[in-house]
Amino acid sequence: MITLNSTHDANLTSWVTSANGHSDFPIQNLPFASFRIHSNEAFRGGVAIGDSIVDLAALASTSLLSGLAQQAAEAAAKPQLNEFMQMGQPAWSALRAALSQLLSSDNSERLPAHCLQLQSQAHYQMPCHVGDYTDFYTSIHHATAVGSLFRPDNPLLPNYKWVPIGYHGRASSLDVSGQAFHRPSGQTKAPDASTPSFGPCKRLDYELEMGIFIGQGNEFGHPIDIDDSHQHVFGMCLFNDWSARDIQAWEYQPLGPFLSKSFASTISPWIVTMEALAPYRSQYLRPESDPTPLPYLCSDNNDEFGSMDIELECFIQTETMRAAGEAPQRLSRSNFRHSYWTIAQMVAHHSVNGCNLRAGDLLGSGTQSGPEAEEAGSLLELSKGGKQAITLANGEQRSFLADGDTITFRGHCERQGFVRIGFGQVESTVLPAKS
Amino acid sequence: MITLNSTHDANLTSWVTSANGHSDFPIQNLPFASFRIHSNEAFRGGVAIGDSIVDLAALASTSLLSGLAQQAAEAAAKPQLNEFMQMGQPAWSALRAALSQLLSSDNSERLPAHCLQLQSQAHYQMPCHVGDYTDFYTSIHHATAVGSLFRPDNPLLPNYKWVPIGYHGRASSLDVSGQAFHRPSGQTKAPDASTPSFGPCKRLDYELEMGIFIGQGNEFGHPIDIDDSHQHVFGMCLFNDWSARDIQAWEYQPLGPFLSKSFASTISPWIVTMEALAPYRSQYLRPESDPTPLPYLCSDNNDEFGSMDIELECFIQTETMRAAGEAPQRLSRSNFRHSYWTIAQMVAHHSVNGCNLRAGDLLGSGTQSGPEAEEAGSLLELSKGGKQAITLANGEQRSFLADGDTITFRGHCERQGFVRIGFGQVESTVLPAKS
Repeated sequence: MITLNSTHDANLTSWVTSANGHSDFPIQNLPFASFRIHSNEAFRGGVAIGDSIVDLAALASTSLLSGLAQQAAEAAAKPQLNEFMQMGQPAWSALRAALSQLLSSDNSERLPAHCLQLQSQAHYQMPCHVGDYTDFYTSIHHATAVGSLFRPDNPLLPNYKWVPIGYHGRASSLDVSGQAFHRPSGQTKAPDASTPSFGPCKRLDYELEMGIFIGQGNEFGHPIDIDDSHQHVFGMCLFNDWSARDIQAWEYQPLGPFLSKSFASTISPWIVTMEALAPYRSQYLRPESDPTPLPYLCSDNNDEFGSMDIELECFIQTETMRAAGEAPQRLSRSNFRHSYWTIAQMVAHHSVNGCNLRAGDLLGSGTQSGPEAEEAGSLLELSKGGKQAITLANGEQRSFLADGDTITFRGHCERQGFVRIGFGQVESTVLPAKS
Repeated sequence: MITLNSTHDANLTSWVTSANGHSDFPIQNLPFASFRIHSNEAFRGGVAIGDSIVDLAALASTSLLSGLAQQAAEAAAKPQLNEFMQMGQPAWSALRAALSQLLSSDNSERLPAHCLQLQSQAHYQMPCHVGDYTDFYTSIHHATAVGSLFRPDNPLLPNYKWVPIGYHGRASSLDVSGQAFHRPSGQTKAPDASTPSFGPCKRLDYELEMGIFIGQGNEFGHPIDIDDSHQHVFGMCLFNDWSARDIQAWEYQPLGPFLSKSFASTISPWIVTMEALAPYRSQYLRPESDPTPLPYLCSDNNDEFGSMDIELECFIQTETMRAAGEAPQRLSRSNFRHSYWTIAQMVAHHSVNGCNLRAGDLLGSGTQSGPEAEEAGSLLELSKGGKQAITLANGEQRSFLADGDTITFRGHCERQGFVRIGFGQVESTVLPAKS
């Protein structure tokens, strides 16, 4: 159980003044990334504060930290956060508490100048080595909407309310915000064609997801009890799990999506920790007519990660909009609190067969669509399977993505009595297929 | 194109006399593994010869090699072979040629004693870091047999003869021969039950597969042309992709197998290189009525990896047999030459969407069942979906695996004019479910 503590205090402010006000990164947030400023430098861990980054490699070489916080900073100073993630909740909390004190307005001492860098000058890489990436399917609204396109009479499969459905994803093609990728080519078959053909994907789509990073892993053969799951989850990011719908439709039987997903998946660079997210937990109330999950998916602690109140937004900026200097236009809003399965349930389910999760493993939440049609997390849903193109403010129409389209996700949490914290953003542009 | 050369000469013998005769590892084979003798030593690369191992760390510190072969040995001397695999075909060939000369009976000099260790004293680990593991489904006989259990009238799905079907697997739970795992628990639903239940898997099965290791990777966004695929494939091993059939049946719609596969997957420790396998290429003749694959899956080089003539055997030894001192009993024989899709086609397909393969990535071939019922690569097929238990020589019956059962795969290649080479074996025992 992660308890609220002085680091969550809404009255805290920082001497990094850009953190006080409308920043995604107030002192109550303190998310982690792997960054560098110059291309000839090593990547190292950093913590966002306002418009700046605390350089953990620089900080760890001062004498400002001690004990577990210092050990944690040394681990987090490495190019990838895996070792820090493996240290577990006490180490994460110790470093957070120490950073909160160091950055607080109440602290008369400032950090040495070389310990702070500007985000505007930073380059990011994957925050950790992802040993395995697993994608879940936790939005019942998404599952129902997509299912109804294929099976109008029976949109939700019988296992959905029992099994936190998931599948193995591709780790090699994960990258951080700014990832450029060419429209994938592959096999597709038109419904009226007798044979498939090869060519660029015609139904390219985004998927509005959250990413969940495993902290401490479990040993092979030792499932994680749902009540211990908080010790094994480090934090969350925004996640765009790009999808080629036409390739998927032809390839996915009987073993699931493959090339329709593996061409690219993009995350936001900052990992917001579960401790920072603790104030925004919320309760998901299943309809009473829904089955009670099997015991291994029920928590004595009232499922502490419960659902999480994370407001999500998806924006598009087409090439035409960019040329005309028009700002990105919002396509939809949704919220992670609609997730039918909680993070604790995903972790317990994933490991119940003895499968070992490792520090840095990434879980995708699946597309987070809300209960209303306009809260859909993909174009497939917004355009009703491509049948009703949506019209943008400048008159352009989209059923699926066009070359040059930039898709941006943003996310934030707010709750009465606490400050607003944000996730930054994940942004990527579709390049034309390679000829 | 890998050409035959002096290392394949059937007349070659070694001064390591155990290599001459009935060994899996004659001088024409020279497969790679990661091994150590004592638990306080570092793992390092080794090459099998007869009953011995050439210790590449020891060899690299002598002055017996030079040039590219020495560089290759230094890379292969590390605890994991990834760096060596990334060096590419010229480096692999240079080291093979140099080892062939050093170990040849014609060579008057013996290796220093500390460069040779006994396999009987060795412990193995995964030969490389597997960044991603992908499982294919290349046996049309397996796909048809399994499909007919679910869809008797339409066993083979319409995409099978067009798409080399594959899905992402779990890398964390891969291990080498000897891997011990407990029978997995999970959700299953009996056909006549209205709700699922939780408990140990009742339909535990093996899958007789080959593993294929990627050598040099491709860059993100740059597909591998089928005619270049030989530059990207390092070698092959035996592979048991354990499966929980009852868990799979309930979970796999719509996103494919997940917990039914991720609890364990076991490989043989030795990777036989594609160069060693070159003499055993064979041609797969599709029925003329089958469609010609799309152009990206057709090779100008007559698909050089073509099919590969690898004889495969699966053995069972039950706890009762072990107690009675009875040898393992063969359950089935099959051959990798029946694979409907070649390795070159798997590699070209996997990367055609821009997905990057990395050195050390593992591809599973999918269960290799032959055209005859007794050539099935799984108990699911041998027992007709569990409906007809098979009777062992001692009277025991098996529809699926029982606790204490040991499953062993062996594999070898032979062809007129060449010596027989083998893969060693992969062996693992089912432990009872954890209570």
